[in-house]
Amino acid sequence: MAAEENVVESTDFPVKENNENGISSVIPGWFSEISPMWPGEAHSLKVEKILFEGKSEYQNVMVFQSSTYGKVLVLDGVIQLTERDECAYQEMITHLPLCSIPNPKKVLVIGGGDGGVLREVARHNSVEKIDICEIDKMVVDDEFSHDLLSLTGLGVAFLKAVPEGTYDAVIVDSSDPIGPAQELFEKPFFESIARALIPGGVVCTQAESIWLHMHIIEDIVANCRQIFKGSVNYAWTTVPTYPSGMIGFMLCSTEGPPVDFKHPVNPIDENDSQSSARPLKFYNSELHTAAFCLPSFAKKAIGSKAN
Amino acid sequence: MAAEENVVESTDFPVKENNENGISSVIPGWFSEISPMWPGEAHSLKVEKILFEGKSEYQNVMVFQSSTYGKVLVLDGVIQLTERDECAYQEMITHLPLCSIPNPKKVLVIGGGDGGVLREVARHNSVEKIDICEIDKMVVDDEFSHDLLSLTGLGVAFLKAVPEGTYDAVIVDSSDPIGPAQELFEKPFFESIARALIPGGVVCTQAESIWLHMHIIEDIVANCRQIFKGSVNYAWTTVPTYPSGMIGFMLCSTEGPPVDFKHPVNPIDENDSQSSARPLKFYNSELHTAAFCLPSFAKKAIGSKAN
Repeated sequence: MAAEENVVESTDFPVKENNENGISSVIPGWFSEISPMWPGEAHSLKVEKILFEGKSEYQNVMVFQSSTYGKVLVLDGVIQLTERDECAYQEMITHLPLCSIPNPKKVLVIGGGDGGVLREVARHNSVEKIDICEIDKMVVDDEFSHDLLSLTGLGVAFLKAVPEGTYDAVIVDSSDPIGPAQELFEKPFFESIARALIPGGVVCTQAESIWLHMHIIEDIVANCRQIFKGSVNYAWTTVPTYPSGMIGFMLCSTEGPPVDFKHPVNPIDENDSQSSARPLKFYNSELHTAAFCLPSFAKKAIGSKAN
Repeated sequence: MAAEENVVESTDFPVKENNENGISSVIPGWFSEISPMWPGEAHSLKVEKILFEGKSEYQNVMVFQSSTYGKVLVLDGVIQLTERDECAYQEMITHLPLCSIPNPKKVLVIGGGDGGVLREVARHNSVEKIDICEIDKMVVDDEFSHDLLSLTGLGVAFLKAVPEGTYDAVIVDSSDPIGPAQELFEKPFFESIARALIPGGVVCTQAESIWLHMHIIEDIVANCRQIFKGSVNYAWTTVPTYPSGMIGFMLCSTEGPPVDFKHPVNPIDENDSQSSARPLKFYNSELHTAAFCLPSFAKKAIGSKAN
């Protein structure tokens, strides 16, 4: 009955049989997300129809209609967002920083060409100016976000040209540190952000998963600890279509009025929001505080350096 | 450049080409988890070696060595646990109830034949007796858990025979409500549990994902609200290898000394634990409280009935 010595023919996932966007020719009609960033596992979504497919100056861009997650935006074969669960990522990456300071006025978004973060920033009545730097014009123009955005730019270069102390908050909505977003995980970039922020200003960056990339997270935390003299914290949220089903954020503040990220001082009331198009689906003040509670294994690895 | 009308041949996932345990003959050497419980998506793990494969009286049982998640236990083609992330599920389903009451002595575990919940219950010095009812002897005997357990039984029948007010806590570590675990999601089962608990006793049951199964959760909450006159709460945790990357728990108490699940009264100190084999990897008191904070969409759906 037991097949104890039944050795399965163990091959690599047939990446070469997927096209560059991850559409599988092995499993017709399914998209499979395969990457050296998460070896040995793959998440697949059933495709109803490809809505956009192209190769930009920086990356492969695809939007498809999925069977059960709505429209899906894919960059270089990696899912960036789906209509069904984008609320978790967009609301958390935006409101964790903006609800932690009393009166955000000037906000810079780096990446985020899909427009979701902009939609969330616009809920804050205090915000007077939003700048956005998206490296890839095609992401802005694609079928997912073409009616949301028209402004693009290069985050790293843009930050260098910005006068010191310009922004109350910077949100870095980047893809993984393989490909065009690599610089957004390195120390010089964090130094530019710190320079561009007012005293007591805040930054929130996409910071990978504690289940998959603890070594990357430890490096980011160590860098941030050197650069941001206010506070350095790690938070996380559930996002079903991201690898390991979750994603983390680094939340840091510059020297100045102290920022206690765990206790939001600027709660957002959905009834009171400028953007009445759609109520908040995910974020609330209790979840804000809970997002900073880490499993013990993660607390041990990064807790002495943050939180 | 844009392939706007590129209709992908949209077929069902080729389930028929997988064997009954989910080992794919389409993607050789990979296990793919496919179920009507989560249509349109699939999670796949690379298989190094099958360690056990068999068909019990109740279900298909398989254990394989994965490439990046350690050993994996699969029942009827659905991942039950992996060595890499089982800590999240086992520690939370056990310590959420047991740390919420001052002095747990008698504990009943239903399901849990893999032995993980037993390992966690044994950390509590106050516990004098643990009963376990696992329907499937093969789960107990398989390569994953064979050195952990020898006692089996049928949860539903067992509970009926138990004298009223026997247990301080009941933990229901069940699979999904399709297959042998179906009864464990129905009202008569919850009634039996309430009967078997002391006044102010607690139950914790596996209660699916808010991203995928809100209708099941709403039904469970409605049933529990009728049956458990103490308190009724929903909590959740990240588990990368479960569908949507998370799983929830119902936590209820019977009439009697009030139980405030959100504020553990019986913190577990890993240094002080009977089971010194392995320190806690996941659970801690802050995470306990945070687990009850729900995203707004879930709060709206179940918040009026629980939490």
